[in-house]
Amino acid sequence: MHPTSFVPQDPDYAQRVRGSFERQGAMVTIGARLGEIEPGRVAIELDWAQPLTQQHGFLHAGMVATALDSACGYAGFTLMPPDAAVLTIEYKINLLAPAKGQTFRMVGSVVKPGRTVTVCEGHAWALEEGREKLIATMGCTLMAVFGRENIRH
Amino acid sequence: MHPTSFVPQDPDYAQRVRGSFERQGAMVTIGARLGEIEPGRVAIELDWAQPLTQQHGFLHAGMVATALDSACGYAGFTLMPPDAAVLTIEYKINLLAPAKGQTFRMVGSVVKPGRTVTVCEGHAWALEEGREKLIATMGCTLMAVFGRENIRH
Amino acid sequence: MHPTSFVPQDPDYAQRVRGSFERQGAMVTIGARLGEIEPGRVAIELDWAQPLTQQHGFLHAGMVATALDSACGYAGFTLMPPDAAVLTIEYKINLLAPAKGQTFRMVGSVVKPGRTVTVCEGHAWALEEGREKLIATMGCTLMAVFGRENIRH
Amino acid sequence: MHPTSFVPQDPDYAQRVRGSFERQGAMVTIGARLGEIEPGRVAIELDWAQPLTQQHGFLHAGMVATALDSACGYAGFTLMPPDAAVLTIEYKINLLAPAKGQTFRMVGSVVKPGRTVTVCEGHAWALEEGREKLIATMGCTLMAVFGRENIRH
Repeated sequence: MHPTSFVPQDPDYAQRVRGSFERQGAMVTIGARLGEIEPGRVAIELDWAQPLTQQHGFLHAGMVATALDSACGYAGFTLMPPDAAVLTIEYKINLLAPAKGQTFRMVGSVVKPGRTVTVCEGHAWALEEGREKLIATMGCTLMAVFGRENIRH
Repeated sequence: MHPTSFVPQDPDYAQRVRGSFERQGAMVTIGARLGEIEPGRVAIELDWAQPLTQQHGFLHAGMVATALDSACGYAGFTLMPPDAAVLTIEYKINLLAPAKGQTFRMVGSVVKPGRTVTVCEGHAWALEEGREKLIATMGCTLMAVFGRENIRH
Repeated sequence: MHPTSFVPQDPDYAQRVRGSFERQGAMVTIGARLGEIEPGRVAIELDWAQPLTQQHGFLHAGMVATALDSACGYAGFTLMPPDAAVLTIEYKINLLAPAKGQTFRMVGSVVKPGRTVTVCEGHAWALEEGREKLIATMGCTLMAVFGRENIRH
Repeated sequence: MHPTSFVPQDPDYAQRVRGSFERQGAMVTIGARLGEIEPGRVAIELDWAQPLTQQHGFLHAGMVATALDSACGYAGFTLMPPDAAVLTIEYKINLLAPAKGQTFRMVGSVVKPGRTVTVCEGHAWALEEGREKLIATMGCTLMAVFGRENIRH
């Protein structure tokens, strides 16, 4: 990935992403791990596993979406101030091909950061026998939330 | 739920949905269970569990989406002929409120069935201390696939 | 349409919608007219006209979307305080059938109102020789904007 | 725009796009004109005009969407066989900034071509006093239709 041109408000953005990621039970359950963390772009990786499959034995679209939504959410989170929490307002995913492969790589990128609303895009690739294939694209809208006690960032 | 007015092409639609659901590793992993199966409408239920959470302790949006996408996919599947497999082309989810609750109920409904393309909508409710709250809506496009050997229905 | 259960913050919500609608050049251009205005729900009607067609002679999807987006935006607007302006963050439209008919009716409804973010759904019907057909559904996210000088409500 | 790597099935793809574009009443109404036509990518341009505005005097989101949807549709159309007609199944648009400017440029690009279903993405830019600004992104699903008499391509 080439470097992004976004300037983070919080120099500790990467640590903030790691801390939040570790609190996500769902990421442990699906075996997701953080890849690169850059201002405005975050990668998450995931291996195929039977407990994550749909009825045809491919990775369930929901698992692709779970990891891709998180990649987009954290991409937006890198550009938010230290006291912000991030919530996903909505996302749309296009499933381009069955999620068939050994490893999956999800990359979330900020398209337009904002004080309240941030728009991201996500791309998911399957790696199968060394070949990389784009399997899903996502458009995602995030909201920065401040001062809600029950939402830790 | 009031009855739907769709007439299934396959009288064994419910058994076909159950058989497919049981082959989904992801449904076992997230603890999802099938609820009502009617022509053009399927419900899936899910309990809160720590392994399904995001960083604030709520159900991860991806888990809500996984169950809701499956509910929509099976809603469409009930109206397809016996030799069809169903694939999700795309979906869009609006997360209306944090997925906070003990139990979650996802209902997928067919809006427009078609020979190739079927459009569904989904609604997810959280049940918290007896109160029901709409937490997500989905718009979903499915494709009926025929004769692809590697895609069992 | 059965009455909605939303309580508007501004008793003059209908007049506020009418005033805003009249400032929209695009609504005049496409011949759109306001129908019912209720708290959380607004209808817009539109007649078929050759200048609004796509290459097959049906109403262009963009024209359906233009009127439906406005219906959703005004549905949300009815529930906002008097000093709010409304902007569409995003919408998704599923085109269920060609927009074939003499008259089209677009209804926007609030699914979840919010201080900053409001989620709506829209339905578009074609009326052809007395029969009504659902031709499009929309999911739409709005933002209430305050105090921006260049955005009059 | 750098060249695309798609190989069209029909060498006369550009002429086919032009012929279809000219049959669209809506494109004349909004003053849209075709820009570059390449395999898998089509640009459409549009000038600001009062009849295309929303209530704040910006270009109506529906007009942005109308042109962007057409750009995506024609991008997909360039890769389809000569006897195909193209229909939009659904699209989702994120409005990143008010459509403020003198001229607007919409570019549709194929992400994943398919025999039946093609997925595209669209980008809309506003040109204001020489500066270019990304104002909208679109994700779009198209269907190739064959042999329907009432749908000319």
